[in-house]
Amino acid sequence: LPTSISRLAQRLAEAGQSHLVQFWDELTPEQQAEMTSDLEAMDFQEINKFFRSAMEVSRSSKQEKMDARMEPVPREVLGSVTRDRDCLKDWEEKGESAGTGVAVLLLAGGQGTRLGVSYPKGMYDVGLPSHKTLFQIQAERILRLQQLAEQRHGAKCCIPWYIMTSGRTMESTKKFFSRHSYFGLCKDNVIFFQQGMLPAMDYNGKIILESKNKLAMAPDGNGGLYRALGTQGIVEDMDRRGVKFIHVYCVDNILVKVADPAFVGFCVQKGGDCGAKVVEKTNPTEAVGVVCKVDGRYQVVEYSEITLATAEKRSADGRLMFNAGNVANHFFTLAFLRDIVQMFEPQLQHHVAQKKIPYVDTQGRLIKPDKPNGIKMEKFVFDIFQFAKAFVVYEVLREDEFSALKNADSQDGKDTPTTVKHALMSLHHRWVLNAAGHFIDENGTRVPAIPRNGPAGCGTADVNQNLKDGTDLPIKCEISPLVSYGGEGLEELVSGREFRPTLVIDESGAHELVKNGL
Amino acid sequence: LPTSISRLAQRLAEAGQSHLVQFWDELTPEQQAEMTSDLEAMDFQEINKFFRSAMEVSRSSKQEKMDARMEPVPREVLGSVTRDRDCLKDWEEKGESAGTGVAVLLLAGGQGTRLGVSYPKGMYDVGLPSHKTLFQIQAERILRLQQLAEQRHGAKCCIPWYIMTSGRTMESTKKFFSRHSYFGLCKDNVIFFQQGMLPAMDYNGKIILESKNKLAMAPDGNGGLYRALGTQGIVEDMDRRGVKFIHVYCVDNILVKVADPAFVGFCVQKGGDCGAKVVEKTNPTEAVGVVCKVDGRYQVVEYSEITLATAEKRSADGRLMFNAGNVANHFFTLAFLRDIVQMFEPQLQHHVAQKKIPYVDTQGRLIKPDKPNGIKMEKFVFDIFQFAKAFVVYEVLREDEFSALKNADSQDGKDTPTTVKHALMSLHHRWVLNAAGHFIDENGTRVPAIPRNGPAGCGTADVNQNLKDGTDLPIKCEISPLVSYGGEGLEELVSGREFRPTLVIDESGAHELVKNGL
Repeated sequence: LPTSISRLAQRLAEAGQSHLVQFWDELTPEQQAEMTSDLEAMDFQEINKFFRSAMEVSRSSKQEKMDARMEPVPREVLGSVTRDRDCLKDWEEKGESAGTGVAVLLLAGGQGTRLGVSYPKGMYDVGLPSHKTLFQIQAERILRLQQLAEQRHGAKCCIPWYIMTSGRTMESTKKFFSRHSYFGLCKDNVIFFQQGMLPAMDYNGKIILESKNKLAMAPDGNGGLYRALGTQGIVEDMDRRGVKFIHVYCVDNILVKVADPAFVGFCVQKGGDCGAKVVEKTNPTEAVGVVCKVDGRYQVVEYSEITLATAEKRSADGRLMFNAGNVANHFFTLAFLRDIVQMFEPQLQHHVAQKKIPYVDTQGRLIKPDKPNGIKMEKFVFDIFQFAKAFVVYEVLREDEFSALKNADSQDGKDTPTTVKHALMSLHHRWVLNAAGHFIDENGTRVPAIPRNGPAGCGTADVNQNLKDGTDLPIKCEISPLVSYGGEGLEELVSGREFRPTLVIDESGAHELVKNGL
Repeated sequence: LPTSISRLAQRLAEAGQSHLVQFWDELTPEQQAEMTSDLEAMDFQEINKFFRSAMEVSRSSKQEKMDARMEPVPREVLGSVTRDRDCLKDWEEKGESAGTGVAVLLLAGGQGTRLGVSYPKGMYDVGLPSHKTLFQIQAERILRLQQLAEQRHGAKCCIPWYIMTSGRTMESTKKFFSRHSYFGLCKDNVIFFQQGMLPAMDYNGKIILESKNKLAMAPDGNGGLYRALGTQGIVEDMDRRGVKFIHVYCVDNILVKVADPAFVGFCVQKGGDCGAKVVEKTNPTEAVGVVCKVDGRYQVVEYSEITLATAEKRSADGRLMFNAGNVANHFFTLAFLRDIVQMFEPQLQHHVAQKKIPYVDTQGRLIKPDKPNGIKMEKFVFDIFQFAKAFVVYEVLREDEFSALKNADSQDGKDTPTTVKHALMSLHHRWVLNAAGHFIDENGTRVPAIPRNGPAGCGTADVNQNLKDGTDLPIKCEISPLVSYGGEGLEELVSGREFRPTLVIDESGAHELVKNGL
């Protein structure tokens, strides 16, 4: 054996992971070479340490009751688009003036597995009239924001877009962007970087083999962001570009307001170093994590950690006491991120996710377990809230800003291509109405603002017969982000006009398409 | 022609409805006899009057803007289960002591057409483990309430159940109840009566023929209740039985709390003669009518009558200004109903519902129109709010009290058998947890209060793998109304115990069923 191999064998033995090479003699030289380089790149001692502390945390957290230690977000640090309407204008202007110092950071390390596709979620076409993908929608919102800022300040504005991929999505994502010439963005301002991967492990801390010559690897969670920011020099790159504030978000929200000026402005005005955008949780059993204080420090408490009694607690105003629903939209100052990367990231424990992980047994047979047989280790992007010196929370309207794509279409399905498409069309429908535009059905009669069906409630004339759409709501309407970022600038295009769905508004103006099934 | 026929022919001529007998000579003697009795029973002058005023109203209402005249429900007349928690106990006790004077009135004139069945909705089995129908669920809630009242006051309590059917549902409904021996209720306390029917008319006021010898007839809307209460002596019957307060509701709400003591108690304590139970409307474009004041009088404004601007208006507390979502759950004093029947009912105008109504043309061919070709005339149960001297509004939680069955199951469907079944199971699941019971999955691990999937929000470990159920939420759990009306009395059955779904709790106790697909 060459010394390199024997050194590797020894490292494996010391780490109790020698089983990884149990099929060594059956491998081809190529497979051996490949596996060697895979293994040599790994720090088994560190991985074992991760495993021990992760299991430690998950065990202890299972015991302790979170409930007694939870406090809601105090009103002083909360900004609400519904309760602080008078401040909105200020915040927006504040944010726009911060404009040039803002960067957008996209978490796109995951694949569309639950969605039933093998490529990155951002490449998914949810079936809009334009057939734009999530990536394109987000890119065009950035373009529009830059354009608006330039109109306002006469100076060139550029919003760098950092895109975190994973080992699994990097190549396809980069190819996709270059094939679409970065959707009109300047190539240099789209910066790809990659989050780390960690092996899946069984409950005894043994790394799982997915085949005789391959370890079962998985991305280290969207909280892998912070390690990646350091290892790949992203913080320095931000510094070079003069970035002061970063909006971090997740690829699956079709309504995401990238670099939302109001959100940024609110956080800046409040002097926050770390902020979370939230939507009000109104149903106690809704499966959404809530931002709150635990032992005086901010964090997101997962819905699965809360008892029903706590989930049902209400404040005097009748709202749920823990109603700050996390939508993975965060604000950070660069200074804060630098501290995280340099000081705090190593302190973050991995969370344990129990999974059914296919593996090869000692006879080399591939086994697909029907129960969880091991864990994946993940960090979460919100794990760093606890380190904030000035944490702020910004509450927005779900119907305006949050609709996530998670699952494939299915009966009664949630977060599907259909539901997110409907959410976007319904928002654009409202934009048109608020810009004094109108919709008519094929009989030429005006369609009411709230389309006629859905839970009418007994005692309502069932008058939706004259909408051919039937339940095919909402009104089919799509507005290109290149025309409007948040509903602005539509009056001249739609005011006083009547449209037959499908209405599409893009750079070439407002036009009706021949009906195409939603 | 016998004089009776010639008299009929003359009446038709005077009313401009002679076309109804245009195929007379082609009819068999039996058909002629049948049609004669149909026609003789009808007051064409009155029907024409209905048509004229209904069209009048609908035309004028189309013009006028509702928005400027709308005011929200003032806080003084509003009781809220979330904002007035301290009062709940009082209201409930007040309602229980009112107990014996309370009657329940069910609106069940509609067929399950949208649901895809030809029989009355109340006979529908939504697929619960027990396969109970809506009728049975409601009957057993009444039984349980009577039992609770008897336990409390030692005296016999009987809650009369008035069931309004229509010409189409009367026979099948009565048969269904007697076949199931009134689900354990005393036959004498289940009183069936029938709402009126009105002919469908074309836009020129001509009654539509659905066949050469049959008029197109439809029930006169759930507001037909008030005329029926008079014509069929229901008010007198209530008087005889010592009824003072009536809870009116609609058959399609699987969560309906029939004769809800808290609702009745609130209305009585507030001295209300007319009350509406509502749920908070949180999304501006939700298709639900809202209870509000118009020109100082209470009414339900249909969602289709409101502009988006009004629907999006918010109060200082951030809530929608018009958020009192009507769920067709009403409280009336008998005195108020008597006034309505005797004085106000005739003043109520019919609403116009445009429909596609199959008809026979002058050649006798059956035509199925693809556009609305005529109207049905309906009154709504809430049309009488305007006559209340002391109107009160009671806000409850949607997830606890409202889930309506309207449509057949379909992808992304709303108000379907699946959604209402889930709503009921999720409520019963919460009852068990609040009674200190627990659920475990097939691995024996406890299922968290908020089941692990749904819109997790990016940054959440996807840990629902170990629930075989997958998205088949919620936890399968059904509690017989005979055991618990509103979650009471479950501790002794579930406290400290662990259950594997499907859990069924009935008179024979708590037991687990072998998994059966939801």
